[in-house]
Amino acid sequence: MPDRHFASDNNAGVHPAILAALAAANDGHSTAYGDDEHTQRAEEAFRALLGPDAQVFFAFNGTGANVVALAAALRPYQAIICPAGAHLAVDECGAYERFGGGKLVDVPVSNGKLTPDDVERQMHGIGDQHHVQPGAISVSQSTEVGTVYTVAELRALGDVARKHGLLFHLDGARIANAIASLGVDAGTMLVETGVDVCTFGGTKNGLMFGEAIVFPKHHPAVDALLYTRKQGMQLTSKMRYAGAQFAALLHDGLWLKNAAHANAMARLLAARMRDLDDVIEIVYPVEANGVFPVLPPQAIEPLQRERRFYVWDHERHIARWMTSWDTTPEDVHEFADAVWRIAPRQKTAATSNA
Amino acid sequence: MPDRHFASDNNAGVHPAILAALAAANDGHSTAYGDDEHTQRAEEAFRALLGPDAQVFFAFNGTGANVVALAAALRPYQAIICPAGAHLAVDECGAYERFGGGKLVDVPVSNGKLTPDDVERQMHGIGDQHHVQPGAISVSQSTEVGTVYTVAELRALGDVARKHGLLFHLDGARIANAIASLGVDAGTMLVETGVDVCTFGGTKNGLMFGEAIVFPKHHPAVDALLYTRKQGMQLTSKMRYAGAQFAALLHDGLWLKNAAHANAMARLLAARMRDLDDVIEIVYPVEANGVFPVLPPQAIEPLQRERRFYVWDHERHIARWMTSWDTTPEDVHEFADAVWRIAPRQKTAATSNA
Amino acid sequence: MPDRHFASDNNAGVHPAILAALAAANDGHSTAYGDDEHTQRAEEAFRALLGPDAQVFFAFNGTGANVVALAAALRPYQAIICPAGAHLAVDECGAYERFGGGKLVDVPVSNGKLTPDDVERQMHGIGDQHHVQPGAISVSQSTEVGTVYTVAELRALGDVARKHGLLFHLDGARIANAIASLGVDAGTMLVETGVDVCTFGGTKNGLMFGEAIVFPKHHPAVDALLYTRKQGMQLTSKMRYAGAQFAALLHDGLWLKNAAHANAMARLLAARMRDLDDVIEIVYPVEANGVFPVLPPQAIEPLQRERRFYVWDHERHIARWMTSWDTTPEDVHEFADAVWRIAPRQKTAATSNA
Amino acid sequence: MPDRHFASDNNAGVHPAILAALAAANDGHSTAYGDDEHTQRAEEAFRALLGPDAQVFFAFNGTGANVVALAAALRPYQAIICPAGAHLAVDECGAYERFGGGKLVDVPVSNGKLTPDDVERQMHGIGDQHHVQPGAISVSQSTEVGTVYTVAELRALGDVARKHGLLFHLDGARIANAIASLGVDAGTMLVETGVDVCTFGGTKNGLMFGEAIVFPKHHPAVDALLYTRKQGMQLTSKMRYAGAQFAALLHDGLWLKNAAHANAMARLLAARMRDLDDVIEIVYPVEANGVFPVLPPQAIEPLQRERRFYVWDHERHIARWMTSWDTTPEDVHEFADAVWRIAPRQKTAATSNA
Repeated sequence: MPDRHFASDNNAGVHPAILAALAAANDGHSTAYGDDEHTQRAEEAFRALLGPDAQVFFAFNGTGANVVALAAALRPYQAIICPAGAHLAVDECGAYERFGGGKLVDVPVSNGKLTPDDVERQMHGIGDQHHVQPGAISVSQSTEVGTVYTVAELRALGDVARKHGLLFHLDGARIANAIASLGVDAGTMLVETGVDVCTFGGTKNGLMFGEAIVFPKHHPAVDALLYTRKQGMQLTSKMRYAGAQFAALLHDGLWLKNAAHANAMARLLAARMRDLDDVIEIVYPVEANGVFPVLPPQAIEPLQRERRFYVWDHERHIARWMTSWDTTPEDVHEFADAVWRIAPRQKTAATSNA
Repeated sequence: MPDRHFASDNNAGVHPAILAALAAANDGHSTAYGDDEHTQRAEEAFRALLGPDAQVFFAFNGTGANVVALAAALRPYQAIICPAGAHLAVDECGAYERFGGGKLVDVPVSNGKLTPDDVERQMHGIGDQHHVQPGAISVSQSTEVGTVYTVAELRALGDVARKHGLLFHLDGARIANAIASLGVDAGTMLVETGVDVCTFGGTKNGLMFGEAIVFPKHHPAVDALLYTRKQGMQLTSKMRYAGAQFAALLHDGLWLKNAAHANAMARLLAARMRDLDDVIEIVYPVEANGVFPVLPPQAIEPLQRERRFYVWDHERHIARWMTSWDTTPEDVHEFADAVWRIAPRQKTAATSNA
Repeated sequence: MPDRHFASDNNAGVHPAILAALAAANDGHSTAYGDDEHTQRAEEAFRALLGPDAQVFFAFNGTGANVVALAAALRPYQAIICPAGAHLAVDECGAYERFGGGKLVDVPVSNGKLTPDDVERQMHGIGDQHHVQPGAISVSQSTEVGTVYTVAELRALGDVARKHGLLFHLDGARIANAIASLGVDAGTMLVETGVDVCTFGGTKNGLMFGEAIVFPKHHPAVDALLYTRKQGMQLTSKMRYAGAQFAALLHDGLWLKNAAHANAMARLLAARMRDLDDVIEIVYPVEANGVFPVLPPQAIEPLQRERRFYVWDHERHIARWMTSWDTTPEDVHEFADAVWRIAPRQKTAATSNA
Repeated sequence: MPDRHFASDNNAGVHPAILAALAAANDGHSTAYGDDEHTQRAEEAFRALLGPDAQVFFAFNGTGANVVALAAALRPYQAIICPAGAHLAVDECGAYERFGGGKLVDVPVSNGKLTPDDVERQMHGIGDQHHVQPGAISVSQSTEVGTVYTVAELRALGDVARKHGLLFHLDGARIANAIASLGVDAGTMLVETGVDVCTFGGTKNGLMFGEAIVFPKHHPAVDALLYTRKQGMQLTSKMRYAGAQFAALLHDGLWLKNAAHANAMARLLAARMRDLDDVIEIVYPVEANGVFPVLPPQAIEPLQRERRFYVWDHERHIARWMTSWDTTPEDVHEFADAVWRIAPRQKTAATSNA
């Protein structure tokens, strides 16, 4: 089996420019915990991207970045409204509930996207001491199913958040894929839409480790952030290596190049499935770096032997094929060829058996 | 000011062999979250060190490793008995209280070391529903003040822990310095003494990031560890880079060489202070990689301009000089020369003023 | 407006026999925190009801009793599967999330009842460190919508709980109403069905305050209960007054008489609505002490001026009419007469306007 | 053994006027959760005592009242500075750590009293992300050892709290004993001294259950109080019975009469010990309703057979004799006679044995 597969963008390695930046930062002593030139350069790069008021704090991983940002902004009796499949809700082992002490209200959505109506429907029990009080909305951009909120959709969410005094949190583990997909600049997606705080993902876009908690504009939660990050076990001592990575990632648009490439590979893979319509249904629009096909059940294991990938929904036989910054067109074509070879045969076999 | 200083061993960079290991691990795709060859090699290296029953889990940082291990083993109504200056108690911003939900009972100690008598004195209120129930003892080895528990001292603590059914936790952010100082093998210090779980530090000993939670023998808390680590936001997705670092650190005794070198530099620095006895008092035995001198107050700032270091106790004018794997004898001599040059003069000045 | 209404069974006062028991217990000094004769008598009464292995702990209120029992039994990475409308999930302001640190997985249900299939559908992600691990099921008996699980339904839930190693928790804020409704003895409903722990409600059945946490058989969580109750702020110092109330409630079947009466009043109220079928639809089977009618929207406020009650579902105009131990047939008839007088007129008015 | 003893003021029963008030409140239906006339009357009584800005919230018990008030006011990374023996720190089974998620910094004190200097010594690490940030001071009035802060002492603590932006919390489980002891009015002790929030105790002063969380003036934490109380499991549904008790307690000075009587009984008991100076040393000034004598070790058990009491400090043989609203002069004299009869004999016996 070839070395690169479609299991997850966090199975990819570190981009060579990032590795070089890590080596370059490895020079003598450097004050721990953030007071170093690399971290400062990274912070400046974020401000260049988002405006001079942006405030940036580095965290180890996405779960930590999400939880620390939300816990810094909210009190435990406040609830977070999020889509039912949100990483925060289903893939973080209850980290927010335990550390933040609050409730997630996860609502069923289509295509992974929360709508203002979904939010409005949760605006009840306000002022009622028995009910958790709506405190935030949290959306993933790009979503867990590879779709991307349009700027208008985000702006509508920002409006409803502002209307109800809710924090607008964006889990951007794959934020670069979203921005590359939308073809807008970061400020358009994050500042003008009213996002209060986001996780700006690095790990899935070519870093070794590291996510940024970014407040596009000043927000009162910033005052609680440093302490909440430390108490949340997300403060790295040798911070320069987080800073150096992000400085390199933001340098010369590497973050967008990496993401745009991954997106293109997903589109290519989806395109190769097009004439297999009667065999394979792609269930979500391919707008970022994931492809979610319904596969003939018998085809799944043989295909996994070609290139590794995960089954996303076992009941409905939906697979998840993720591309990453290092996926090559050859990877895509070889795998697509395998799908063409294997899937229709299994489909036919299944039909004859029926 | 020269580039290397005495502020903290976490201000040092990454050892070249570790950086090389990171680069070598950067090869194609690798399953995330620990199911990779690098992580497995690191785990095997720990078992080679401590015996076949050792179980190892990597975490991002020392706070996370301490808190996750203790929270996995304890219920929130159980208390942790620790020395008053324990990192857990004073340098982790209340992480255990918040994530673990339990109380730390910090007791005043001498030379940073908890004794069995200290523990016995806390064995009250047992079975009393109003009182937190003693659940663990936690000690730092080497201690926050640069001292090292002897094997006999640890064994005595292990005995009292076993006698009262307490978990014996060891915060080994500088565990290598302790083992190098004692000149015993790791098993003697960790297995025979009855340590249930320790943080095996990497960051302060030449890693970029990463600490290991190590159970020398099987312990029931292991069953809770994976979930507690994830819920505690300490699970790195690209785990191979944690594994690769630890595999390299444990390879061919690098961990002990680094630590022994740092210890030697601290001893050298202390030795250079010897004939300054009437000017500078070293207040804790220099057994690992820290030197804690009482300085003439007026000498502190001028000396910090020579090489950076922290004041440990502002009231008593105690400084903390930390050495690290990359401290050179020249660094020590240059700094010691500066102390000789500056400290007596300030002492004299202070005396004349009085 | 008459003094008794249909807003909630906790708006009713204290049963005279309970008040008399409180006065009788008010005699001299009594050891605090449970070591008194009244508490012991109450505990014995529970053992008489459920068998000699039953273990009983008094708590202040239902939220406290639910949360303490679940938190004593579970670790924070374990999830509780419950119906979407469970009191635990929607009326306790996130108490479990904050104190227990864990996640509630609330699933949509019919008639307020969780089924074994609902539970089975949540049995995924087991052993996966990213996912909260199923740890318990929690059901309300009677349910929040006035229905009652049959013994067979509970047994089926107990079976699925045992199959998957889940704690079976029953929120019995209205447990007496359920047992009276089923016409079985308490042991049949609680012991034979495999319930591990329940909240045995007192407040809604004529007490001034007080709920019991009852383990029908020994359960390991009992070891954590005393400490978790105190840490959960649910330990009353003058425990004798909790004990005296429960001893009186369980004496001579008062608990069942109170509940059977409240149930009968609900049935009477529902019966009086029967020929109003085209005007008022009762949306849940009336099996305990609640009646849930869909009302003509315009009739709601005029009816609330007759006797107070709450609107349960504002979108669908479903009201909740609760009866209690002190509801009289006259209360029911007067209110039913008002409904007959007001509701059809509003219905007609609404229709003519349309 | 007579029925009343000296074990604890919470072993006493309910004052007859309170019991009568409970019975009087037991009249028909009443809205749950605080919107009832009894609760409103109690709130008004507090405003009559403290001024029109006072805000009052009832809780079940002292642990709950302390924890809810502090958790509503603080973030988890903030620390509470309190005396080492504070009820909050040693008798609440870690409730604050678990529910509030924060650290208690308990400092050694004399006579149970925190001083401004004690507070100042903890004003370090401010702004340092590794350290919990000082957020509050919490003192007990009267203290756990029966002493009473003077108004000047409280004012000095209020000043230091304001200087450093700390919440000033007062655990007034025995607040009436303190006010009676000082002979000032409640406003002088609570409003002018700068107390931000206190637990105003009822249970130890003749109530069946119930403590009040009182903000003498408006404080921003009030906005979080209702939700924090519910999430903290301290909201009673049949609130009228809490309100009715407090309304009766505050009516016509009953609270002060009860407390003044208990204080007088403690003074009488202490006075009776005066000429036993060589046998019994009273170790804390008797300023409220507790007497703390060092007893001859052999006298303890025989005395406990006369009237029950607890040993406060087993190492130093210090007993705690608590008086309460129902202690009679005869109780005191009978017990004092027993002490005179038993203690000197045991003292002599011990001396002869030595």
